[in-house]
Amino acid sequence: MKIVTARKILEANELAAQRNRNRFHAAGVFCINLLGSPGSGKTTLLEALLRHLDGPLAPGVIEGDIAGSVDAERIEALGVPVVQINTQGACHLDAGMVEAAVADLHLQRLDLLLIENVGNLVCTAGFDLGEQLRIIVLSTSEGHDKLIKYPAIFRGSQAVVVSKMDLLPHTDFDPRRVAEGLRVLSPEAAVFHVSAVREEGVAELARWVAARASARSD
Amino acid sequence: MKIVTARKILEANELAAQRNRNRFHAAGVFCINLLGSPGSGKTTLLEALLRHLDGPLAPGVIEGDIAGSVDAERIEALGVPVVQINTQGACHLDAGMVEAAVADLHLQRLDLLLIENVGNLVCTAGFDLGEQLRIIVLSTSEGHDKLIKYPAIFRGSQAVVVSKMDLLPHTDFDPRRVAEGLRVLSPEAAVFHVSAVREEGVAELARWVAARASARSD
Repeated sequence: MKIVTARKILEANELAAQRNRNRFHAAGVFCINLLGSPGSGKTTLLEALLRHLDGPLAPGVIEGDIAGSVDAERIEALGVPVVQINTQGACHLDAGMVEAAVADLHLQRLDLLLIENVGNLVCTAGFDLGEQLRIIVLSTSEGHDKLIKYPAIFRGSQAVVVSKMDLLPHTDFDPRRVAEGLRVLSPEAAVFHVSAVREEGVAELARWVAARASARSD
Repeated sequence: MKIVTARKILEANELAAQRNRNRFHAAGVFCINLLGSPGSGKTTLLEALLRHLDGPLAPGVIEGDIAGSVDAERIEALGVPVVQINTQGACHLDAGMVEAAVADLHLQRLDLLLIENVGNLVCTAGFDLGEQLRIIVLSTSEGHDKLIKYPAIFRGSQAVVVSKMDLLPHTDFDPRRVAEGLRVLSPEAAVFHVSAVREEGVAELARWVAARASARSD
């Protein structure tokens, strides 16, 4: 018996990711893969970001979840085009799922595609979706030790959003430890400190995203 | 080419889980699989629980992480026997890893084995480790929608610990939604509301665990 190795699966994923990348490029769409633990605040951040970006840019969203459509409903309520992927058990999105979901979006009408991955700090890191940018959301309530425990996902990201800064005074989270960890894992990564519920730090992040998106499409 | 299906992997896991179960039974050890998101507070809960249980019972701990040993160091500081498993990329413990780790514990000296799984609400649910009890830790800062998004893990658990109750006033977490979700997913599950940092609710949980452990060994 032969074994289908993880390498084969990742090779197939890379082919689909490259197709996605080509489609995004042809349509002039900048694509972001938003990662983080369950409950780190990805959807709330996305809602806050969309309030800043929708207008200057034409955004679309893909929501990844094991089951349910609560997140897609929240995005739809903002009037932003959204497709929900239910992975039916899989703990991460892969490029093939995104390829299928993209067929339900009008890419030509979009400038920016935000993909909210399944809440997971492990397997999501291994699957390129064809994005130009990876952003990790790390909430203050999770603890700063996540960089030590889940190094791969931080190593592959271009920005870390420290979310739920409103909860900081009630936790022992030390933002300096995030900066220390990133110096080793991803020295070029941008760091943002955000409280989405208080609308703090969101405008700065939105400006950075918009600048990256417009630099890409120039 | 033949494909090694997920079913084959799970069958191999089930054999190892059964071997673990037999060893735990022979040694009179009650085994708990502690699950939850990254940063849900599993280790802090474990520390608080051990302060109550170490003495009445002889506990041992297996810590599961992708990388690092920060959690095992915290348990060691309490004087409790602990083995760290580094999964080196895998997003969940499996029964074979636990079997290997158990070889480094003196099972005969233990009454209770607490296994802290990798922070993950998806894949951990699919791998029986040979435990008698599964407990999920769900923090108030994660949001009550986790039962809708990750139903499988709640379906397979006998208790849910709603952790970080000290943060409840600063979140929109609604404990009633957890109870509602569990009525569908796991109606027999016990629910505990705990603030480990404030030592609230820990004694009640410890009594419940001790009662389950002693009922098992009778």
